Amino acid sequence: MSSAVPVSFPAEIPLSRTTRCTCIKISDRPVNPRSLEKLEVIPASQSCPSVEIIATMKKNGEKRCLNPESKSIKNLLKAISKNR
Amino acid sequence: MSSAVPVSFPAEIPLSRTTRCTCIKISDRPVNPRSLEKLEVIPASQSCPSVEIIATMKKNGEKRCLNPESKSIKNLLKAISKNR
Repeated sequence: MSSAVPVSFPAEIPLSRTTRCTCIKISDRPVNPRSLEKLEVIPASQSCPSVEIIATMKKNGEKRCLNPESKSIKNLLKAISKNR
Repeated sequence: MSSAVPVSFPAEIPLSRTTRCTCIKISDRPVNPRSLEKLEVIPASQSCPSVEIIATMKKNGEKRCLNPESKSIKNLLKAISKNR
């Protein structure tokens, strides 16, 4: 009897598709426009398939990834644009 | 007759109001979402009274200030958010 056991590769995750997104986890917590230093919007690209929105906070420079699909981020963008 | 001439100060521009905005000139030229590396939105603050939108281009890393009031920037934000 043959005892050959095929070496198993995780074929479900093609290596060529490794992504290089900036965000690891995304927060759905709303952000106060007044405590916001800046907001970065990074479009989807070959290196990361999803839009990324990164909020930098005034207080400690903390960066937080926001969900581009959430209503709060849409309101935030509106609030920022109005605030002049 | 008195020949006293008041020393003229540019009183219309109070010195205490010198601003530290990032943008010096603002472009109204539309930006192609595909050639955009990222978009930074900086809310109005005490150091700069207006919202600033800075586009970084993919090709050469060139930064361009955009007019937050323009229709093209609103379309750009829409295009970026959809592009996933």
